[in-house]
Amino acid sequence: MPSVTSLLHERFGSDTDSPESGECVQSVHQQLARRGSVRKFRPDAVPDRTLRRLCALALCAPTKSDLQQRDIVIVDEPSLRAQILGPLAEGPLGQRWLVDVPNLLIFCGNNRRQRRIHALRDRPFANDHLDAFFNAAVDAGIALSAFVIAAEADGLGVCPISAIRNEPIAVSRLLRLPDHVFPVAGLAVGYPAEEPKRSMRLPLSVTVHRNAYSETGLDEAISAYDLRREMAQPYSTQRSWKEFGMAKSYGWSEDKARQYARAERADFGQFVRQIGFKLD
Amino acid sequence: MPSVTSLLHERFGSDTDSPESGECVQSVHQQLARRGSVRKFRPDAVPDRTLRRLCALALCAPTKSDLQQRDIVIVDEPSLRAQILGPLAEGPLGQRWLVDVPNLLIFCGNNRRQRRIHALRDRPFANDHLDAFFNAAVDAGIALSAFVIAAEADGLGVCPISAIRNEPIAVSRLLRLPDHVFPVAGLAVGYPAEEPKRSMRLPLSVTVHRNAYSETGLDEAISAYDLRREMAQPYSTQRSWKEFGMAKSYGWSEDKARQYARAERADFGQFVRQIGFKLD
Repeated sequence: MPSVTSLLHERFGSDTDSPESGECVQSVHQQLARRGSVRKFRPDAVPDRTLRRLCALALCAPTKSDLQQRDIVIVDEPSLRAQILGPLAEGPLGQRWLVDVPNLLIFCGNNRRQRRIHALRDRPFANDHLDAFFNAAVDAGIALSAFVIAAEADGLGVCPISAIRNEPIAVSRLLRLPDHVFPVAGLAVGYPAEEPKRSMRLPLSVTVHRNAYSETGLDEAISAYDLRREMAQPYSTQRSWKEFGMAKSYGWSEDKARQYARAERADFGQFVRQIGFKLD
Repeated sequence: MPSVTSLLHERFGSDTDSPESGECVQSVHQQLARRGSVRKFRPDAVPDRTLRRLCALALCAPTKSDLQQRDIVIVDEPSLRAQILGPLAEGPLGQRWLVDVPNLLIFCGNNRRQRRIHALRDRPFANDHLDAFFNAAVDAGIALSAFVIAAEADGLGVCPISAIRNEPIAVSRLLRLPDHVFPVAGLAVGYPAEEPKRSMRLPLSVTVHRNAYSETGLDEAISAYDLRREMAQPYSTQRSWKEFGMAKSYGWSEDKARQYARAERADFGQFVRQIGFKLD
């Protein structure tokens, strides 16, 4: 089994030089270092009580000011799952693998409960501005991340599905999400039928700063990262090649620049306002 | 050592009944179930290479579309740390413990790099709307959560500090954060000098839904939770008692309703727009 150090070196490049730790630490760190998304699953469903246990573990993660502004919806009704994921699998930009996801969870931000508490305690809610939305969104991300780690510890595979925000109104209607509750991300969960894909990451010289943000060497680091990925984890297809042509060299930055050269979820803000948030 | 089941039962109430798993799983799950924030640390600093290793592990967590829109700033210059945390420790609502935080990290959303990639690859950036900000914020939350778990596996104690967003302009100036980079949360890290505080959580009947969002029994569940906390983890002081008086019974919902009866970070949206985001 490769060491945590070698796994990190493989993922981040050459700047994670550090010693191994004790045995128990190593098991968690090893798991984190080895982790990656899984998009191919065995067809059998994970038992409900396992999912609920993992939800509980995920909700042990920190939450802003103890406000607990995040919920999880376990979608185990097959036709409901198909209604949510089907549209995201179709079309030229569709993700085909979503059709066969055995278990689906939806992580939601929930600022509605907080407002209810104000009604119950007869106190004014004085925070109807961006922070209310922001805190709930970040809380949901924190819980999702902890769920991922808990599930992977159990030998399960997972893959977050941000595409559920492509159709936030439809998803909210299907899950009967009321005002001030919104989907942040879906999570595909199941018994893996493939090795996790350990995506390479930008080097820490770019993403970890010391005392001040720095962009020294950024462009060069991106070029080197593009090359490193192209050598070890080449993209199997070029995105939107009809529009942008076939590039001779196709790395991460080209793929990401092509992705965001098209508008994605331009109506998400409108949805968020529609369900009652002010984003002032 | 208490079992994961008993720890979860203690935290969530009575609805997490589920079997124990194998040994290695147990170690991660045990850790998650036992976790809690630490606000009292030994004075010695955690070595830089340990912090960097934990950053690397945290950045193995999922990131929306592989975009990697989150950065971590390690603040190890003592006067800089004092400039950031000092103001948050002062005043009637100040958090005194922040004065003695031995290590400070700032988790940031970063949509700037994505825009740079578009310039480098000469592609238009077609996503100047809420989702750009949202994705980077959630990515930062995901990385923070994974850092917490990696650090706690190492025997370290942590506590997120959302209060750094009280003064986003000052923090950004001190850390020289450029446009489209914003602080999401600070994280206090250190060798713990107290047991982690395992905050009780709302029962899963409230926060985990099945196929559809449900509020059945919500008010009663909140009352029962208030009581459960008041019995086992009573608040040591009542928030804003000069304004709201001393309540006979003081639970979670009263504390949270009092907290958000005052405006917090009402200018956060203005800051976010000021650094270049459109929140349409």
